[in-house]
Amino acid sequence: MDRIKRNERLGAMTHLLIQTPNKIHTFSEFCEMFGSAKSTISEDINMIADSLSRFGLGTVYTISGASGGVIYQPSLSIDKVKETLDNISKTLSDPARILPGGFLYTSDITSDPAICEILGRIFAMRFWQHSPSFVLTMETKGIPLALMTARALNIPLVIARRDSKAYEGSAVKISYISGGEAGHIETMALSRRSVKAGQRALIIDDFAKGGGTLQGMVDMMAEFQSPVVGIGVMISTAVPSEKRCRDVKALFTLDAIDAANAKCVVSPSEEFIHAIE
Amino acid sequence: MDRIKRNERLGAMTHLLIQTPNKIHTFSEFCEMFGSAKSTISEDINMIADSLSRFGLGTVYTISGASGGVIYQPSLSIDKVKETLDNISKTLSDPARILPGGFLYTSDITSDPAICEILGRIFAMRFWQHSPSFVLTMETKGIPLALMTARALNIPLVIARRDSKAYEGSAVKISYISGGEAGHIETMALSRRSVKAGQRALIIDDFAKGGGTLQGMVDMMAEFQSPVVGIGVMISTAVPSEKRCRDVKALFTLDAIDAANAKCVVSPSEEFIHAIE
Repeated sequence: MDRIKRNERLGAMTHLLIQTPNKIHTFSEFCEMFGSAKSTISEDINMIADSLSRFGLGTVYTISGASGGVIYQPSLSIDKVKETLDNISKTLSDPARILPGGFLYTSDITSDPAICEILGRIFAMRFWQHSPSFVLTMETKGIPLALMTARALNIPLVIARRDSKAYEGSAVKISYISGGEAGHIETMALSRRSVKAGQRALIIDDFAKGGGTLQGMVDMMAEFQSPVVGIGVMISTAVPSEKRCRDVKALFTLDAIDAANAKCVVSPSEEFIHAIE
Repeated sequence: MDRIKRNERLGAMTHLLIQTPNKIHTFSEFCEMFGSAKSTISEDINMIADSLSRFGLGTVYTISGASGGVIYQPSLSIDKVKETLDNISKTLSDPARILPGGFLYTSDITSDPAICEILGRIFAMRFWQHSPSFVLTMETKGIPLALMTARALNIPLVIARRDSKAYEGSAVKISYISGGEAGHIETMALSRRSVKAGQRALIIDDFAKGGGTLQGMVDMMAEFQSPVVGIGVMISTAVPSEKRCRDVKALFTLDAIDAANAKCVVSPSEEFIHAIE
């Protein structure tokens, strides 16, 4: 391989950093890959850091010491966060999304790879400081969003099921209350292998109305002696304002849905934006 | 904003291209963003293309014409594909993964963001030439892998459910045969809004034994008048060799699982590797 120019290194290094958010890359990894001195790689890293920061595309920083190296943190500028949430809330406020029974159709959004990717980054900005060890979600609709949040934080995703499965081994199974005021009992199962005592859980789901499923996940974590360090949902309904689960951080609020008048109002959460500003 | 140097542009442009695989970026988008001439941006693109190609990190290419622009295709070098599949097959062959009943524990792998990301790229390499319009999977375990495949192809993900849900609107519901030789009847539901007639389906799932669930998805696509252009699974069992569904492309074969002798053999599919070489 002939001598590698700076411009060639910059593309490849940017790729490697961005593909592995929140993962530490050692300087020796890059020195070996490009056959360059540490001082050269260090200059390259500074250039990439300046470039991404200037365009609000995330932060590259260096951790010194024996276990040190370079990390890419996929944060976004606050303007980009606002613009993203504004655009998605407009899409979600389309009256064509109103379903019989006053439900909101969101499945196309909750499984859109690009939308989940950027919302995962935004959740990561809010919760990374609480050092979660894994992301927990309950099947099915929240999985894409939870996966992208886990990816942005470089931690595993754990999926709770409605029932235990032979191919997931022994499981803990609990009952929880779901639905409206009266509520009904549902079950949730989680493979014993999936979480170790003391690991820190970040709960992510797509939608909260009563908050019962979220509280079910909190109760499940108590069974595993795993502290819950954050709870994030994509959309929370304004009504009921009292949820079965506390401290839920929502990206959007479903303020109103009215089939008779073909009116649907979804707005970005000011509180969420303020918290990451 | 003062004048932007080439090194600054390279980091930001690499980021934008890589974050949006298989999406066309116009030259004017970059010219406007960086305040540069088209010739300058064109040179930048060539540098990024050379850099990524040299290190086996994907292909950047230019489409000419009015609707043209620049695309990043997240392909991997064949050596990187082999290394990735070898490493994962070793992890999966750990006898500690054998569960009572002769099942293989894979949930930690199928929901690992980094593993799903790279396997999604490998699926994309195999199937992009068939121009799928969306990826279809059946809840639950295959969702992370299907999402990452959809992301690499820049197409939506559609999730079939065991039963229809009020919050997904009217649905098509079918019965299909799942399980071993005798089989049992299961149901599958898919929201009518999620697929339009004529859209091309790529089916992705985590595991195929009898192939009944895959065939169920094929039958479901017939209901939607949606042609199936490819079927990919992460792991296919060697036994039974005759599946209920044909033309299934697996990344790995589960050759043997023997609880009594603590032996488990998972190997990369030579056929799959050969097909993308």
